[in-house]
Amino acid sequence: MVTRLSHYFLRTLREDPADAEVPSHRLLVRAGYIRRQAPGVFAWLPLGLRVKAKIEAIIRDEMANAGAYEVHFPALLPREPYELSGRWEEYGDGMFRLKDRKGADYLLAPTHEEVFTLLVKDLYNSYKDLPLTIYQIQDKYRDEARPRAGLLRGREFTMKDAYSFDASDAGLDASYQAQRDAYERIFRRLGLEYVIVAADAGAMGGSKSEEFLHPTDIGEDTFVRSEGGYAANVEAFTTVVPEPIAFDGLAEPVIFDSPNTPTIQTLVDHANATMDGDYTAADTLKNVVLALTHLDGTREVVAVGLPGDRDVDDKRVEVAFAPAAVEPATAEDFERNPLLVKGYIGPWSETGPILGEESATGIRYFLDPRVVDGTSWITGANIDEKHVHSLVAGRDFTADGFIEVATVREGDPAPDGSGPVRLARGMEIGHVFQLGRKYAEALGLKVLDENGKLVTVTMGSYGIGVTRILANIAELNNDDKGLIWPASVAPFDVHVVATGRDAAAFELAASLSADLEASGFDVLYDDRPKVSPGVKFGDAELVGVPRIVIVGRGAADGEVELWDRRTGDRQVVPAAEAVARLTA
Amino acid sequence: MVTRLSHYFLRTLREDPADAEVPSHRLLVRAGYIRRQAPGVFAWLPLGLRVKAKIEAIIRDEMANAGAYEVHFPALLPREPYELSGRWEEYGDGMFRLKDRKGADYLLAPTHEEVFTLLVKDLYNSYKDLPLTIYQIQDKYRDEARPRAGLLRGREFTMKDAYSFDASDAGLDASYQAQRDAYERIFRRLGLEYVIVAADAGAMGGSKSEEFLHPTDIGEDTFVRSEGGYAANVEAFTTVVPEPIAFDGLAEPVIFDSPNTPTIQTLVDHANATMDGDYTAADTLKNVVLALTHLDGTREVVAVGLPGDRDVDDKRVEVAFAPAAVEPATAEDFERNPLLVKGYIGPWSETGPILGEESATGIRYFLDPRVVDGTSWITGANIDEKHVHSLVAGRDFTADGFIEVATVREGDPAPDGSGPVRLARGMEIGHVFQLGRKYAEALGLKVLDENGKLVTVTMGSYGIGVTRILANIAELNNDDKGLIWPASVAPFDVHVVATGRDAAAFELAASLSADLEASGFDVLYDDRPKVSPGVKFGDAELVGVPRIVIVGRGAADGEVELWDRRTGDRQVVPAAEAVARLTA
Repeated sequence: MVTRLSHYFLRTLREDPADAEVPSHRLLVRAGYIRRQAPGVFAWLPLGLRVKAKIEAIIRDEMANAGAYEVHFPALLPREPYELSGRWEEYGDGMFRLKDRKGADYLLAPTHEEVFTLLVKDLYNSYKDLPLTIYQIQDKYRDEARPRAGLLRGREFTMKDAYSFDASDAGLDASYQAQRDAYERIFRRLGLEYVIVAADAGAMGGSKSEEFLHPTDIGEDTFVRSEGGYAANVEAFTTVVPEPIAFDGLAEPVIFDSPNTPTIQTLVDHANATMDGDYTAADTLKNVVLALTHLDGTREVVAVGLPGDRDVDDKRVEVAFAPAAVEPATAEDFERNPLLVKGYIGPWSETGPILGEESATGIRYFLDPRVVDGTSWITGANIDEKHVHSLVAGRDFTADGFIEVATVREGDPAPDGSGPVRLARGMEIGHVFQLGRKYAEALGLKVLDENGKLVTVTMGSYGIGVTRILANIAELNNDDKGLIWPASVAPFDVHVVATGRDAAAFELAASLSADLEASGFDVLYDDRPKVSPGVKFGDAELVGVPRIVIVGRGAADGEVELWDRRTGDRQVVPAAEAVARLTA
Repeated sequence: MVTRLSHYFLRTLREDPADAEVPSHRLLVRAGYIRRQAPGVFAWLPLGLRVKAKIEAIIRDEMANAGAYEVHFPALLPREPYELSGRWEEYGDGMFRLKDRKGADYLLAPTHEEVFTLLVKDLYNSYKDLPLTIYQIQDKYRDEARPRAGLLRGREFTMKDAYSFDASDAGLDASYQAQRDAYERIFRRLGLEYVIVAADAGAMGGSKSEEFLHPTDIGEDTFVRSEGGYAANVEAFTTVVPEPIAFDGLAEPVIFDSPNTPTIQTLVDHANATMDGDYTAADTLKNVVLALTHLDGTREVVAVGLPGDRDVDDKRVEVAFAPAAVEPATAEDFERNPLLVKGYIGPWSETGPILGEESATGIRYFLDPRVVDGTSWITGANIDEKHVHSLVAGRDFTADGFIEVATVREGDPAPDGSGPVRLARGMEIGHVFQLGRKYAEALGLKVLDENGKLVTVTMGSYGIGVTRILANIAELNNDDKGLIWPASVAPFDVHVVATGRDAAAFELAASLSADLEASGFDVLYDDRPKVSPGVKFGDAELVGVPRIVIVGRGAADGEVELWDRRTGDRQVVPAAEAVARLTA
């Protein structure tokens, strides 16, 4: 059936929505694809729903090719499974929670590992039942602190989430690879550039994890890649650790006056002015005091030592201490720990270690991996306006552990030896996880192995953000006139525009639309009477169907115009040839 | 792609689920279509999802034929629109409510009139934009007090809900009829018997409403129909009102002793024993005291008088007093109203009216429409163990209004004169409403008419319960072996079963499955090795694909068996003819 614009539920808007920060948001609203209902919550209008359905069809197709079966879970789920996995608490404010009329606790699921695990536990009991990969395409909820950028960071969003179940680690590797391959096929079919980066698996309790990032300046993720092929998001980047240095012959620590040097820069300037040598921030040891809030609500003050030319990276530190929440230590935290002299903090004082093993403060102390044994540092002496130099790691101070929280910089060496890395921004459009046995253990999913012994199942979890992908495609495919959809996901295949007041043009346009539809095209036919050609062309450009056919003045001569929305090319062709030309 | 059972996510169960009250619930769980997640909340397994998708495709097709366009709203919606319509309060405990991290109120939508109205208000402004009908197929939430019967009364369920928008009443009539016609086509294609009954439109604030009921003994709705074609649910049934009788010559009221007659039956027995005449319950006036709880929380005691051979019908009284909640008056309510003597209540006492106009109690009094002026009743005298006879309606007592709350009985006359009605049970599978201007007024949806004057839009609302329909089809199509799907919604078109240990049988079954798939059939192929024929046949019967092909011993001779799941017929045919036979 040809969709006639005169009756279609579509109104394009002349004004950009006031809250639109990015092109996809602005254009999807203006062109009548989506409409805001609440912060981060949208309704889908007919055009938007058509594009979404096409993306979903491609995903379903590739899931079937990967041997995955579709199921569907409710968004509303009871608390218990999430209590068992620990995520009822871990999700904090990010999860919508509610009570039913009897006072029982429910949630709107942000992700479904728990209930998929329980479903398989419910129905399966033998290694012979495995491997299994099941998935759903479903509306998920996360109570984002700052929903923004339209569909890119919403509170309701559609995801394809798949879960694999295997009896062995080798099986998990194969299931993981099958999903990873399917993701590559999906993104290729969608014409969406992607980079697969190593990701941190810690937060999900897993062993291996990769993200599919779409490189874009509006991306919220920073990732690194080397010429040699290494790619990781900054959370997963690991530092190349230098060799330790022997202590023999290293100078002993010397405390020196350093008035008015509470920052690294003032300290370096002071050192260069008062001491021999050409010091840089990299010669200093910066000590950052953080406060962790653990899941049980307890607050712990910790310190991190890192080269003075690096800062603590917000995302890396969040991952490093997850599931605890991290914030800078407050004045109150410092008051409780008077041995730490703000602006002049170091791991050591005249009387011995202040931080690290055998510390006087009892505060846990973590070091950047570059601070290897035998490296010598200028750092605080825990006395107001005094620092110490020649303080040697491993000899004069130690750590309770090494930690990857320092900022990653352009030019840092890739951990696999493939050369220096460059930094880029990307947006997560897919994520594959080897969860391992965390959820299966928490929820008791075991099967009998070949020897009749119960073994815990190992799992993977694989997500694709359907609505986020749609927005990314829109971000990537637009110009100052509007959207330009790739053919694979365009809401219609052809947009036929009848112009003028000549009945013959409208008749030709109608019959051409019917012919196109009969040839398998989805046709949007702009049959609106008394609407100027300029308005019709503007709407066609805004809506962004890639192939447009104009039926106007030439209709009398049996001619129509083919208009390529992307290149702008226009070609006059005989109407009789239009279907063949569009099919070619 | 042929779906192979050896890898499919399907486990049939031998045991009925403990909580299953009805066949659809029992069989859909046992055959691996759905799985319970919480009371009234289910997950959809691959088989169930396939059937659901087929029903949805039929609905989408007929919505397109009716000129309706699909949109999609979130389940999570802000409070404001529902506050404006009054339904934030009206829904009471039946609606799931929640707060976001900022404390803002949200709900899980039980129905979407408000936001559809606002969407159209947002985008449309002229009568030329209308008529418009838009719909969605979407998961809805209602916090049922007693979720039960599997999908038939769940707390999450899938609905198709459509909304029409017109500038005129005639337009609404046409839009309503188009949806009503589409519903008839949908139910016919689904092979689902239905009765269209007049329904009460009051609760939705509308002017006309009809329900599509599927006649079934497990239905929760009672409806009536006459031979002459009248059909209504009991809430919408209206009583045929007798002619009033002149007061001239009617006897005056007489109070008489009636010890120990607090019930209608004891009163009738007493009357027949002590007075001339052959009295029945229909000669008595029963007075029922009810307590209403209004939306603002206030409690009001009211009384209803009706012939003693009728009771107050729970559903009719609920509709009559909606949106107030109704319950029987409590002992406390009676204490507060000492003029009403329990067991001996009447509208009149020796000193004059107790109930109705100029009543001594101030309690509002409603009468059944049969209690017309001039009818003479035996009823309570508001004195312990005393009744009154010859109490004449309109002369000795009056009402504050007439009300349709009495039970409807087999044989009652249809209001349209089409003869006596019969009673039947049904389950609501569709509902069409002329909402009129209630929502448009509450939310300010107006358009400019031909004369440039703002007019309020008139609306309709049209619902079909997708998951409930699925369960009803399952209720209607099963036997003691399992499900028997109609071809239009079966999860697969053909179920091929390979039996035995002969590799030739499995090869033939595989090639036949591929041929069937190539001919356009969706094929489920039971290729499980080492599973006995008995188990495979049992599973095939339980799963209920209507056409089964058995490939077993006859394979060596190139023969297969066609098995009609519904009739049980089995026919041996040459394998080469199987596709043609199944296509025929």
